[in-house]
Amino acid sequence: MTLSFEDFTPGPFGSFGPRRVSRAEIIGFAAEFDPQPMHLDDEAARHSMLGGLSGSGWHLCAVMMRMLVDGFLSRSATLGSPGVDELRWMSPLRPDDELTLDIEVLRSRVSNSRPDTGIVTFGCRVRNASGQTLLEAVTPIIFKRRAPAAA
Amino acid sequence: MTLSFEDFTPGPFGSFGPRRVSRAEIIGFAAEFDPQPMHLDDEAARHSMLGGLSGSGWHLCAVMMRMLVDGFLSRSATLGSPGVDELRWMSPLRPDDELTLDIEVLRSRVSNSRPDTGIVTFGCRVRNASGQTLLEAVTPIIFKRRAPAAA
Repeated sequence: MTLSFEDFTPGPFGSFGPRRVSRAEIIGFAAEFDPQPMHLDDEAARHSMLGGLSGSGWHLCAVMMRMLVDGFLSRSATLGSPGVDELRWMSPLRPDDELTLDIEVLRSRVSNSRPDTGIVTFGCRVRNASGQTLLEAVTPIIFKRRAPAAA
Repeated sequence: MTLSFEDFTPGPFGSFGPRRVSRAEIIGFAAEFDPQPMHLDDEAARHSMLGGLSGSGWHLCAVMMRMLVDGFLSRSATLGSPGVDELRWMSPLRPDDELTLDIEVLRSRVSNSRPDTGIVTFGCRVRNASGQTLLEAVTPIIFKRRAPAAA
Protein backbone atom coordinates (compact mmCIF):
# COMPACT_ATOMS: atom_id res chain seq x y z
CA MET A 1 0.00 0.00 0.00
CA THR A 2 1.28 3.43 -0.95
CA LEU A 3 0.61 6.31 1.44
CA SER A 4 -1.09 9.27 -0.23
CA PHE A 5 -2.00 12.78 0.89
CA GLU A 6 -5.25 11.46 2.40
CA ASP A 7 -3.37 9.14 4.76
CA PHE A 8 -1.86 12.01 6.72
CA THR A 9 -4.34 13.53 9.14
CA PRO A 10 -3.44 15.92 11.97
CA GLY A 11 -2.16 14.18 15.10
CA PRO A 12 0.64 11.82 16.12
CA PHE A 13 1.76 9.74 13.12
CA GLY A 14 4.41 7.38 14.48
CA SER A 15 7.86 6.82 15.96
CA PHE A 16 10.74 5.36 13.97
CA GLY A 17 14.12 3.88 14.85
CA PRO A 18 16.14 3.41 16.88
CA ARG A 19 19.12 4.20 14.68
CA ARG A 20 22.64 4.26 16.11
CA VAL A 21 25.20 6.83 14.98
CA SER A 22 28.81 5.79 15.53
CA ARG A 23 31.87 7.89 16.30
CA ALA A 24 33.29 6.94 12.88
CA GLU A 25 30.13 8.17 11.14
CA ILE A 26 30.23 11.46 13.08
CA ILE A 27 33.87 12.07 12.18
CA GLY A 28 33.38 10.92 8.58
CA PHE A 29 30.48 13.29 7.93
CA ALA A 30 32.29 16.18 9.62
CA ALA A 31 35.49 15.60 7.66
CA GLU A 32 33.54 15.90 4.42
CA PHE A 33 30.97 18.58 5.21
CA ASP A 34 31.58 20.34 8.53
CA PRO A 35 35.27 20.16 9.47
CA GLN A 36 35.09 22.09 12.73
CA PRO A 37 37.19 20.92 15.72
CA MET A 38 34.18 20.09 17.94
CA HIS A 39 33.01 17.54 15.34
CA LEU A 40 36.42 16.02 14.58
CA ASP A 41 38.71 15.92 17.56
CA ASP A 42 38.03 14.77 21.16
CA GLU A 43 40.59 17.05 22.78
CA ALA A 44 39.43 20.18 20.92
CA ALA A 45 35.81 19.17 21.54
CA ARG A 46 36.35 18.98 25.31
CA HIS A 47 37.14 22.69 25.28
CA SER A 48 34.15 23.60 23.06
CA MET A 49 30.78 24.95 24.18
CA LEU A 50 29.37 21.41 23.87
CA GLY A 51 31.98 19.84 26.20
CA GLY A 52 32.86 16.80 24.07
CA LEU A 53 32.77 15.34 20.57
CA SER A 54 29.44 16.06 18.88
CA GLY A 55 28.05 15.43 15.43
CA SER A 56 27.39 18.19 12.94
CA GLY A 57 23.84 19.49 13.11
CA TRP A 58 23.61 18.77 9.39
CA HIS A 59 24.63 15.18 10.02
CA LEU A 60 21.72 14.90 12.43
CA CYS A 61 19.42 16.30 9.71
CA ALA A 62 20.76 13.78 7.20
CA VAL A 63 20.18 10.90 9.63
CA MET A 64 16.66 12.21 10.30
CA MET A 65 16.04 12.19 6.53
CA ARG A 66 17.16 8.57 6.32
CA MET A 67 14.81 7.71 9.19
CA LEU A 68 11.95 9.50 7.38
CA VAL A 69 12.64 7.56 4.17
CA ASP A 70 12.97 4.20 5.93
CA GLY A 71 10.08 5.00 8.26
CA PHE A 72 7.39 5.86 5.71
CA LEU A 73 8.46 8.07 2.79
CA SER A 74 9.75 5.10 0.78
CA ARG A 75 6.24 3.65 0.73
CA SER A 76 4.51 6.96 0.02
CA ALA A 77 3.57 8.95 -3.06
CA THR A 78 5.90 11.79 -2.07
CA LEU A 79 6.97 14.36 -4.65
CA GLY A 80 9.58 16.07 -2.49
CA SER A 81 9.69 19.05 -0.18
CA PRO A 82 9.97 22.81 -0.72
CA GLY A 83 12.07 23.30 2.42
CA VAL A 84 12.00 23.49 6.19
CA ASP A 85 9.99 26.06 8.10
CA GLU A 86 12.02 25.82 11.28
CA LEU A 87 14.89 23.70 12.52
CA ARG A 88 16.31 23.67 16.06
CA TRP A 89 19.41 21.84 17.26
CA MET A 90 18.65 21.45 20.94
CA SER A 91 21.22 19.00 22.34
CA PRO A 92 24.42 17.62 20.82
CA LEU A 93 24.55 14.36 18.86
CA ARG A 94 27.06 12.14 20.70
CA PRO A 95 28.96 9.07 19.46
CA ASP A 96 26.85 5.89 19.71
CA ASP A 97 23.60 7.76 20.37
CA GLU A 98 20.54 5.62 19.58
CA LEU A 99 18.08 7.94 17.88
CA THR A 100 14.32 7.78 17.71
CA LEU A 101 12.24 9.97 15.39
CA ASP A 102 8.77 11.05 16.49
CA ILE A 103 6.52 12.32 13.72
CA GLU A 104 3.36 14.34 14.07
CA VAL A 105 1.13 15.69 11.31
CA LEU A 106 0.58 19.36 12.13
CA ARG A 107 -1.67 20.26 9.19
CA SER A 108 -2.41 19.40 5.58
CA ARG A 109 -3.96 21.15 2.62
CA VAL A 110 -4.61 20.56 -1.06
CA SER A 111 -2.24 22.45 -3.36
CA ASN A 112 -3.75 25.48 -5.08
CA SER A 113 -1.46 25.27 -8.10
CA ARG A 114 -1.54 21.47 -8.48
CA PRO A 115 -4.87 20.16 -7.15
CA ASP A 116 -3.83 16.54 -7.74
CA THR A 117 -1.31 17.03 -4.92
CA GLY A 118 -1.38 18.15 -1.31
CA ILE A 119 1.07 19.54 1.22
CA VAL A 120 1.44 17.86 4.60
CA THR A 121 3.33 19.76 7.30
CA PHE A 122 5.15 17.48 9.75
CA GLY A 123 6.55 18.16 13.19
CA CYS A 124 9.69 16.06 13.61
CA ARG A 125 11.50 15.36 16.86
CA VAL A 126 14.73 13.37 17.18
CA ARG A 127 15.51 12.11 20.67
CA ASN A 128 18.27 9.96 22.17
CA ALA A 129 17.88 6.88 24.38
CA SER A 130 17.67 9.06 27.53
CA GLY A 131 14.77 10.98 26.05
CA GLN A 132 16.70 14.20 25.42
CA THR A 133 15.45 16.07 22.36
CA LEU A 134 18.33 16.66 19.94
CA LEU A 135 16.43 18.23 17.06
CA GLU A 136 13.03 19.66 16.30
CA ALA A 137 11.91 20.54 12.79
CA VAL A 138 8.76 21.63 11.01
CA THR A 139 8.75 20.65 7.38
CA PRO A 140 6.18 20.53 4.57
CA ILE A 141 6.22 17.53 2.20
CA ILE A 142 4.22 17.21 -1.03
CA PHE A 143 2.24 14.03 -1.77
CA LYS A 144 0.01 12.90 -4.60
CA ARG A 145 -3.66 12.75 -3.76
CA ARG A 146 -5.44 9.42 -4.07
CA ALA A 147 -8.56 10.94 -5.63
CA PRO A 148 -7.78 13.89 -7.91
CA ALA A 149 -10.27 16.75 -7.71
CA ALA A 150 -12.85 16.89 -10.48
CA ALA A 151 -12.14 19.91 -12.65
CA MET B 1 43.08 37.19 12.24
CA THR B 2 40.06 35.56 13.86
CA LEU B 3 36.64 36.93 12.99
CA SER B 4 34.59 37.87 16.05
CA PHE B 5 31.01 39.02 16.58
CA GLU B 6 32.07 42.62 15.89
CA ASP B 7 33.27 41.74 12.39
CA PHE B 8 29.77 40.93 11.16
CA THR B 9 27.78 44.06 10.39
CA PRO B 10 24.51 44.12 8.44
CA GLY B 11 24.96 44.06 4.68
CA PRO B 12 26.57 41.86 2.02
CA PHE B 13 29.42 39.82 3.54
CA GLY B 14 30.92 37.87 0.64
CA SER B 15 30.61 35.17 -2.00
CA PHE B 16 32.35 31.82 -1.72
CA GLY B 17 33.11 29.00 -4.12
CA PRO B 18 32.70 27.81 -6.75
CA ARG B 19 32.40 24.24 -5.54
CA ARG B 20 31.54 21.44 -7.95
CA VAL B 21 29.26 18.57 -6.94
CA SER B 22 29.70 15.40 -9.00
CA ARG B 23 27.18 12.74 -9.96
CA ALA B 24 29.07 10.25 -7.77
CA GLU B 25 28.81 12.58 -4.76
CA ILE B 26 25.07 13.06 -5.34
CA ILE B 27 24.44 9.33 -5.56
CA GLY B 28 26.78 8.56 -2.64
CA PHE B 29 25.06 10.99 -0.29
CA ALA B 30 21.60 9.80 -1.36
CA ALA B 31 22.50 6.13 -0.92
CA GLU B 32 23.49 6.84 2.67
CA PHE B 33 20.95 9.44 3.77
CA ASP B 34 18.13 9.98 1.27
CA PRO B 35 17.63 6.85 -0.85
CA GLN B 36 14.75 8.08 -2.98
CA PRO B 37 14.65 7.19 -6.70
CA MET B 38 14.98 10.81 -7.93
CA HIS B 39 18.36 11.07 -6.15
CA LEU B 40 19.71 7.67 -7.16
CA ASP B 41 18.57 6.55 -10.57
CA ASP B 42 18.51 8.45 -13.90
CA GLU B 43 15.60 6.55 -15.37
CA ALA B 44 13.38 6.92 -12.27
CA ALA B 45 14.47 10.56 -11.95
CA ARG B 46 13.36 11.35 -15.50
CA HIS B 47 9.80 10.50 -14.46
CA SER B 48 9.97 12.51 -11.19
CA MET B 49 8.66 16.03 -10.58
CA LEU B 50 12.21 17.35 -11.08
CA GLY B 51 12.67 15.73 -14.51
CA GLY B 52 16.13 14.27 -14.00
CA LEU B 53 18.68 13.17 -11.42
CA SER B 54 18.89 15.70 -8.56
CA GLY B 55 20.77 15.82 -5.30
CA SER B 56 19.07 15.49 -1.94
CA GLY B 57 18.14 18.85 -0.43
CA TRP B 58 20.08 17.80 2.65
CA HIS B 59 23.15 17.15 0.49
CA LEU B 60 22.88 20.72 -0.73
CA CYS B 61 22.69 21.89 2.91
CA ALA B 62 25.77 19.83 3.79
CA VAL B 63 27.71 21.31 0.86
CA MET B 64 26.59 24.79 1.91
CA MET B 65 27.94 24.07 5.40
CA ARG B 66 31.29 23.05 3.95
CA MET B 67 31.37 26.27 1.94
CA LEU B 68 30.58 28.28 5.09
CA VAL B 69 33.40 26.58 6.99
CA ASP B 70 35.93 26.97 4.18
CA GLY B 71 34.66 30.46 3.39
CA PHE B 72 34.98 32.06 6.81
CA LEU B 73 33.79 29.99 9.80
CA SER B 74 37.12 28.17 10.08
CA ARG B 75 38.82 31.49 10.79
CA SER B 76 36.14 32.77 13.15
CA ALA B 77 35.39 32.52 16.86
CA THR B 78 32.17 30.59 16.19
CA LEU B 79 30.53 28.62 18.98
CA GLY B 80 27.95 26.88 16.80
CA SER B 81 24.37 27.50 15.79
CA PRO B 82 21.01 26.94 17.46
CA GLY B 83 19.30 26.05 14.18
CA VAL B 84 17.86 27.43 10.98
CA ASP B 85 14.99 29.90 10.87
CA GLU B 86 13.98 29.12 7.32
CA LEU B 87 15.26 26.93 4.53
CA ARG B 88 13.97 26.81 0.95
CA TRP B 89 14.98 24.38 -1.77
CA MET B 90 14.18 26.38 -4.89
CA SER B 91 15.77 24.53 -7.82
CA PRO B 92 17.27 21.05 -8.03
CA LEU B 93 20.96 20.33 -7.50
CA ARG B 94 22.19 18.68 -10.72
CA PRO B 95 25.29 16.54 -11.33
CA ASP B 96 28.39 18.70 -11.95
CA ASP B 97 26.74 21.92 -10.80
CA GLU B 98 29.29 24.56 -9.83
CA LEU B 99 27.93 26.22 -6.69
CA THR B 100 28.51 29.70 -5.35
CA LEU B 101 27.42 30.77 -1.86
CA ASP B 102 26.37 34.38 -1.30
CA ILE B 103 26.33 35.49 2.33
CA GLU B 104 24.62 38.53 3.79
CA VAL B 105 24.50 39.61 7.42
CA LEU B 106 20.84 40.31 8.15
CA ARG B 107 21.19 41.37 11.80
CA SER B 108 23.28 40.86 14.91
CA ARG B 109 22.77 41.22 18.63
CA VAL B 110 24.63 40.56 21.86
CA SER B 111 23.39 37.49 23.73
CA ASN B 112 21.26 38.22 26.79
CA SER B 113 22.25 35.03 28.59
CA ARG B 114 25.96 35.09 27.64
CA PRO B 115 27.07 38.71 27.16
CA ASP B 116 30.56 37.63 26.05
CA THR B 117 28.91 36.23 22.91
CA GLY B 118 26.66 37.52 20.16
CA ILE B 119 24.26 36.06 17.61
CA VAL B 120 24.68 36.94 13.93
CA THR B 121 21.81 36.04 11.59
CA PHE B 122 22.95 35.25 8.06
CA GLY B 123 21.04 35.13 4.82
CA CYS B 124 22.55 32.38 2.66
CA ARG B 125 21.95 31.83 -1.04
CA VAL B 126 23.40 28.97 -3.08
CA ARG B 127 23.34 29.47 -6.85
CA ASN B 128 24.58 27.48 -9.83
CA ALA B 129 26.77 28.70 -12.69
CA SER B 130 23.70 29.92 -14.64
CA GLY B 131 22.67 32.08 -11.69
CA GLN B 132 19.67 29.95 -10.67
CA THR B 133 19.06 30.02 -6.93
CA LEU B 134 19.05 26.46 -5.56
CA LEU B 135 18.71 27.19 -1.86
CA GLU B 136 17.95 30.09 0.44
CA ALA B 137 18.41 29.89 4.19
CA VAL B 138 18.29 32.20 7.18
CA THR B 139 20.44 30.97 10.03
CA PRO B 140 21.73 32.39 13.31
CA ILE B 141 25.33 31.63 14.33
CA ILE B 142 26.90 32.38 17.72
CA PHE B 143 30.32 34.08 17.92
CA LYS B 144 32.56 35.22 20.74
CA ARG B 145 32.78 38.97 21.19
CA ARG B 146 36.15 40.62 20.89
CA ALA B 147 35.55 43.01 23.81
CA PRO B 148 33.41 41.44 26.55
CA ALA B 149 30.94 43.81 28.16
CA ALA B 150 31.99 45.30 31.48
CA ALA B 151 29.77 43.85 34.21
